[in-house]
Amino acid sequence: MISLLDTTLRDGAQAEGVTFSVDDKMRIALALDQLGVDWIEGGNPGANPKDAAFFQRFKEIAPLKTARLVAFGSTIRPGEQPEDNENLQALVDAGVCTVSVFGKASVLHVDEVLRCSREENLRMIRESVQYLSQKGLTVLFDAEHFFDGYQQDSNYALSCLQAAVDGGASCLILCDTNGSALPDDVENAVQCVISRFPGKEVGIHCHNDCGLATACSLAAVKAGATMVQGTMGGIGERCGNADLCTLIPLLEKKLGKPCLPEGHLVKLTHTARFVAEIMNLSLSSRAPFVGTAAFAHKGGMHIDGVIKNPTTFEQISPESVGNQRRFLLSDQAGRAGVYARLSKILPDVERDSPEMSQVIARLKEKEARGYTYENAEGSFALMALDTLGRRPHFFEVQDFHVLCHRPQIVPDISHSAQAYVKISVNGEEGINAAEGDGPVNALDIALRKTLAVFYPALNKMRLKDFKVRVLDSGGTASTVRVSIESTDGEHFWSTVGVSSNIIQACFKALVDSIDYMLTYHVPASQE
Amino acid sequence: MISLLDTTLRDGAQAEGVTFSVDDKMRIALALDQLGVDWIEGGNPGANPKDAAFFQRFKEIAPLKTARLVAFGSTIRPGEQPEDNENLQALVDAGVCTVSVFGKASVLHVDEVLRCSREENLRMIRESVQYLSQKGLTVLFDAEHFFDGYQQDSNYALSCLQAAVDGGASCLILCDTNGSALPDDVENAVQCVISRFPGKEVGIHCHNDCGLATACSLAAVKAGATMVQGTMGGIGERCGNADLCTLIPLLEKKLGKPCLPEGHLVKLTHTARFVAEIMNLSLSSRAPFVGTAAFAHKGGMHIDGVIKNPTTFEQISPESVGNQRRFLLSDQAGRAGVYARLSKILPDVERDSPEMSQVIARLKEKEARGYTYENAEGSFALMALDTLGRRPHFFEVQDFHVLCHRPQIVPDISHSAQAYVKISVNGEEGINAAEGDGPVNALDIALRKTLAVFYPALNKMRLKDFKVRVLDSGGTASTVRVSIESTDGEHFWSTVGVSSNIIQACFKALVDSIDYMLTYHVPASQE
Repeated sequence: MISLLDTTLRDGAQAEGVTFSVDDKMRIALALDQLGVDWIEGGNPGANPKDAAFFQRFKEIAPLKTARLVAFGSTIRPGEQPEDNENLQALVDAGVCTVSVFGKASVLHVDEVLRCSREENLRMIRESVQYLSQKGLTVLFDAEHFFDGYQQDSNYALSCLQAAVDGGASCLILCDTNGSALPDDVENAVQCVISRFPGKEVGIHCHNDCGLATACSLAAVKAGATMVQGTMGGIGERCGNADLCTLIPLLEKKLGKPCLPEGHLVKLTHTARFVAEIMNLSLSSRAPFVGTAAFAHKGGMHIDGVIKNPTTFEQISPESVGNQRRFLLSDQAGRAGVYARLSKILPDVERDSPEMSQVIARLKEKEARGYTYENAEGSFALMALDTLGRRPHFFEVQDFHVLCHRPQIVPDISHSAQAYVKISVNGEEGINAAEGDGPVNALDIALRKTLAVFYPALNKMRLKDFKVRVLDSGGTASTVRVSIESTDGEHFWSTVGVSSNIIQACFKALVDSIDYMLTYHVPASQE
Repeated sequence: MISLLDTTLRDGAQAEGVTFSVDDKMRIALALDQLGVDWIEGGNPGANPKDAAFFQRFKEIAPLKTARLVAFGSTIRPGEQPEDNENLQALVDAGVCTVSVFGKASVLHVDEVLRCSREENLRMIRESVQYLSQKGLTVLFDAEHFFDGYQQDSNYALSCLQAAVDGGASCLILCDTNGSALPDDVENAVQCVISRFPGKEVGIHCHNDCGLATACSLAAVKAGATMVQGTMGGIGERCGNADLCTLIPLLEKKLGKPCLPEGHLVKLTHTARFVAEIMNLSLSSRAPFVGTAAFAHKGGMHIDGVIKNPTTFEQISPESVGNQRRFLLSDQAGRAGVYARLSKILPDVERDSPEMSQVIARLKEKEARGYTYENAEGSFALMALDTLGRRPHFFEVQDFHVLCHRPQIVPDISHSAQAYVKISVNGEEGINAAEGDGPVNALDIALRKTLAVFYPALNKMRLKDFKVRVLDSGGTASTVRVSIESTDGEHFWSTVGVSSNIIQACFKALVDSIDYMLTYHVPASQE
């Protein structure tokens, strides 16, 4: 059995272009918990106020079912005592049972970066770990630059591990911080550590600067490491971390080493795409196992082979990781996946019915135009109802106009946009206008103000989150996808709109959001 | 010495979203020749008329300096004779000295896909290779599914190679067609092949379905393979092929095995980006060695370490592969990072000067408002110049208005926005308007149209990419950050704008982009 530590929220945050809000972190942690990873490294509460706020929120609501949250921080500085170090204090205050503390395991780094004696570095490691252990915390020791350090001076690198063990560390994490190790080197070094510290749990933390993070992680497991660290989609500083979405299927299906709870592997693709969506990053289409192209066949001979026997060109079944096969020339939508979602909304529609085929055809047409329903259940439900002629109609939009101008007096905070909206409800007209912080906000306010006259329940509705993704590289005329998350204080739902006009894309997502609330969350008497 | 075969133009063309024109192929082949690869697999002239045209063009102009062009095709079909096979004929007619011919080396594929006797498959391989050899061609034999076939029935897989050797093949290419092999399996199988066929050149061709294409290629080289195949950027069917941009630096710098002509490694990053540009694909920023993030440092401690000694966080020097180090300016970066970037723009500003402090203070204030400069060198330069009173002023924006309305007749494709812009240049006024696909496009066109009257160089400028990030969860009133990448056909630069009004955020990034071009890329006489 291999245990998994996901560090998307900590090391992943070092990636270019990634910034997490506390809300983002919360949603990713919950998704990882549902997937079934063992440990979630949540951040560095001593170095980053946002991370401290995240741990505070967790302490209050304790939302994880099975995963354990880990706080990350540094050892003390040269000359310092543990009780005087604010970083260690922040780890103690984080309210978690397990902490991960990193120290240098390389003479180059001790000599040139820390610039203290090698003996002093060992004291810093030992006393930091000891201080945290004595507070009752389980301590994972991250041996930074371990593999480079082992090449430079293997005795010293092992002494650093010994110092952590002396301090009471429960697990030794061997880090290839610069991503420079080769798999054979990792295997040899891990073997040596395991024979030197028998019975001590050993973990592996790799980076992908040589394109070898996957191979080095596997080499460590082969040598006896039992904890594997990585991030979702492999995001992380420079070329990124080991990608758990690649490692999990390899460990389970190729090496026969279970690491997720039984039956959870099928959640992998959905989790990978959900996390990428929250980070507002595109998951690479070529990502092993979870990418949209991972089981996409283009060559005619390949398609022929797969139809004769899928194992001729597929190493594992796409369904086993929750992905789906695609034939790029004669596209075939994943009927099973659509059915699974449709049956939640319309339980009377059968799997092989003409209705299913109609919904699949519409879905493909929408997807070809840039829609994605991966994270937009609200719009998926309305699209399916609409296709089958079962979508209720609450209102018609007759017209809208939005005017934006250069903010005049106080830049950035004045109401710099106005919107005008005209709707009709059962033949009765409603016209109203609003101003707002930007065109989307003005349009949102105007639309709900106009409709609330007819449907007072809408006064409870508000928009929680709003995301914009530019789909192609057509400069400012690019196609834009807008995703909106809404709530009435009790339920949450997501909708999506696509257009080359960003305002129109927002408007579509807004209309879907209101329609979804009126369809599913307003008792008929309150409409 | 390792020889390299690039198959971007053949196997790379199997990737989703990749289509090459004959011109594209020509430009890529020339770039690969300049880089110094040994072989360029140009396509399958018997299966694809466009590939046949490409080989025809090459025959006429013979443009390659050192690389040799290879034509690729299949062995004959069950029951067929070589002289009746149009595919082999196309290889002979391609006008190249070397051909690559593929046959099945797996009992599963012979039994279930070819559906002929195993003996017949051996005849097809032997006679196809023999026919081409007797025409005076050097024949590389691609043993498709070799590693899976070796697991299924190693004797039969080796018999397929024997058939190719009997036919006169000069090199045996072992293919992991499905990308399912593990490095140890590859190493063992290659060792076996080399001991069975002493003196015969052995090549390796891997796919990345397990994220192990790099590791498997290295394992093969370790076992004695001397030809490595792959594509630029790792493009290819499904999860792609082994990435030569990763393998070349590893082979040269880590394994000490030269594969490019001396001094050519520095061309790698430029070649990778040039080829990606022709394919109209973004090269992953995280690509090892050649990605824009491969040497990008974000954590404050990492930046501090690199400044003290680059080898502390860089496994090789970025310059050795033609890439460059970048310090990302984030809330995690310190003074060192800001100075490293500022000194490129204003070399006269010293590290501990009051000017540095002013820039840092302004940077922090802007970051607190949602700006990020880690991927916006253009806006960073202008912000620094502005802070120090050294930003040139080319124009003032007097006013702008943007009007969006509900697309009326043809949804999504009508020009659904209009913009009006008023500017002044040295006291002279310019007023103009434009319509566009959405408000950002309309504003972009109107602004550049108005300014091009004064600065004709702006006619060359165009926007390459456009990204939107919603920063907080304030619903539709959220703060929005817009990043824009621009080009004048020669240079590329990035700018950023932040506002709660998305139109205003775009406008700021647009104005910065124009200012940056006028400041840095227009000779004074052309302004």
